[in-house]
Amino acid sequence: MIPGPTPVPENVLSCMSKHPIGHRSGDFQEIVQKTTEQLKWLHQTKADVLTITGSGTAAMEAGIINTLSKGDQVICGDNGKFGERWVKVAKAYGLDVKVIKADWGQQLDPDEFKRILEKDTDKQIKAVILTHSETSTGVINDLQAINNEVKNHGKAITIADCVTSLGACNIPMDDWGIDVIASGSQKGYMIPPGLSFVAMSKRAWDANSKSDLPKFYLDLNQYLKTVNKNSNPFTPAINLYFALEESLTMMQNEGLNNIFSRHARHQKATQEGIKAMGLNLFAKEEFGSPAITAVHPENIDAESIRKSIKNNFDILLAGGQDHLKGKIFRIGHLGFVNDRDIISVISALESTLDKMGQLKAPSGKGISKAISILNNA
Amino acid sequence: MIPGPTPVPENVLSCMSKHPIGHRSGDFQEIVQKTTEQLKWLHQTKADVLTITGSGTAAMEAGIINTLSKGDQVICGDNGKFGERWVKVAKAYGLDVKVIKADWGQQLDPDEFKRILEKDTDKQIKAVILTHSETSTGVINDLQAINNEVKNHGKAITIADCVTSLGACNIPMDDWGIDVIASGSQKGYMIPPGLSFVAMSKRAWDANSKSDLPKFYLDLNQYLKTVNKNSNPFTPAINLYFALEESLTMMQNEGLNNIFSRHARHQKATQEGIKAMGLNLFAKEEFGSPAITAVHPENIDAESIRKSIKNNFDILLAGGQDHLKGKIFRIGHLGFVNDRDIISVISALESTLDKMGQLKAPSGKGISKAISILNNA
Repeated sequence: MIPGPTPVPENVLSCMSKHPIGHRSGDFQEIVQKTTEQLKWLHQTKADVLTITGSGTAAMEAGIINTLSKGDQVICGDNGKFGERWVKVAKAYGLDVKVIKADWGQQLDPDEFKRILEKDTDKQIKAVILTHSETSTGVINDLQAINNEVKNHGKAITIADCVTSLGACNIPMDDWGIDVIASGSQKGYMIPPGLSFVAMSKRAWDANSKSDLPKFYLDLNQYLKTVNKNSNPFTPAINLYFALEESLTMMQNEGLNNIFSRHARHQKATQEGIKAMGLNLFAKEEFGSPAITAVHPENIDAESIRKSIKNNFDILLAGGQDHLKGKIFRIGHLGFVNDRDIISVISALESTLDKMGQLKAPSGKGISKAISILNNA
Repeated sequence: MIPGPTPVPENVLSCMSKHPIGHRSGDFQEIVQKTTEQLKWLHQTKADVLTITGSGTAAMEAGIINTLSKGDQVICGDNGKFGERWVKVAKAYGLDVKVIKADWGQQLDPDEFKRILEKDTDKQIKAVILTHSETSTGVINDLQAINNEVKNHGKAITIADCVTSLGACNIPMDDWGIDVIASGSQKGYMIPPGLSFVAMSKRAWDANSKSDLPKFYLDLNQYLKTVNKNSNPFTPAINLYFALEESLTMMQNEGLNNIFSRHARHQKATQEGIKAMGLNLFAKEEFGSPAITAVHPENIDAESIRKSIKNNFDILLAGGQDHLKGKIFRIGHLGFVNDRDIISVISALESTLDKMGQLKAPSGKGISKAISILNNA
């Protein structure tokens, strides 16, 4: 139950061990055609969705370097490890970066974006770059509100890291008018890591035509040209495509709304179970991520809880990163997760606190609360 | 029997369907540590070998952009589709590219490299970039001789695309003093596509310290820092690592010399079988690639032979690319290939020519020649 790689269904795993077929064969072209349509469905868009062999970082970098030019002014939202990373990418390519920060565990403030964008009357700001679900802290940023400010600005585009939000909550790309969405296979997609995805709006392609940053492997024009022929510019991770086709078909069978409400139910049950057993949530409930819940146990080493749950129950949770190491642990509930997983982790946590003599609420209170939410939501 | 993806052994395929483990876990660190040592063995080097999630092009681009700066003078060897590609990469990053060409099907001439490098008395040439085995034409370039000219120059480094030569023929990186070797998983490695590898000598790292080309996902410093902790900078294709560990162990059990002589035997049997049935080789025998043999049938459409072999024998061969489409077909004998594969393809070819009324030699002559080489080599 880490935020990625997430659990992979057995039928998806079996696709991984099929013998790779030629990437220029008709059979493979059919898979590219089908998955491309499925990806558009998942992104709720008519725009192009391109598949890159690489991590989510590669997709996010591709979004940035294919739409911007050296010296361009951009705003980066930074309230966690991934926000920090996009600042680094933007700076590595010589962009003029203005950072809007929030403390780790807090949400980015849409009003700050509004103020800076409104002040930019000569339209020098070319892009707003932000992380939707900040995996390091379990915070979801208000992408819709921030994107609305970008729309009001009229010139800038929004480049969103939706790596742990896509396939967990509603992100209607076309309805909201988001320009670039980056995501990765080992998250809501329920397949192993190795593929990543960039969706590009018409406005993003317009920006692309002026972009002068050097690139080759991540040059999205090459991906666009080949995807239109149901192909790839370079040899792709063929076996991951087999898995992708299977998992996207499972997702279509479940339906977008069912997927989103399943994640919301699991998030709520996790949050409430945690609170009921007397532990603190790291991020406020109202901006908790549908993918991951960060827990901030007071006066207990978070790592010792995490290790005990791994040793006694073989449930792997994520630790805190950087200055949060030892202070928080993180429960992933993203992708192929069902009610069993939620009640397992909540009971394992109660049992662990009990054994450590650190359970502050009456025994059973956390799991009982989680069960009641799962049964009544 | 295409030049990649190459056949994947069953035991390697089963590794692909294991459930991905956390890429920050101790178990995964063990795999990174083991495969890194195995990769050094395969490259015959003490230098760093880094693993990237991406295609061979990503590895080759990483080699180029991590050692060079904008405006740097480089020589690119171009005698086929991949040679062309490295010229494009070098130009995309604003390098000052001098191209040494040879016709498709011919070898690059080491003397041309020598002349230009000797003339460069003020040492402005920073790198020589070339393809070792040119997959598009089945030609192997004389990497050792060209690299010797680079060594005589004293300042430039050699950046070699060994995508279809590594694991097929002897490339002792340290003995020859090659600076950068790029390769990809779906070739001699016998695993599906999705991982690629860059080996970097000390001289390459010295060049890296001065390199100013922008990069992030392909910034090899990030890979070096993390590989020293048996980790990766970004979420890697975990399942492909499982496969890599298995296939490199198979390769170690077979032994480097046995692998090379197996490829040489298969190459020779294929070449001689082809000639004995009255067909022409596209590249001269003495510079035929150990990975792939290109066949140039006179007065017969190469595509019709290729399609007939696919339809009647379910053996997939590669076609010609660009201006060679319809003129040549290519037989891959790279990676997990045994004698059965060679006699199958040679007999299928004889049968096909016979059916088309195009078999010029007495029936059985090609296969008999191939068998005799396999039995006596």
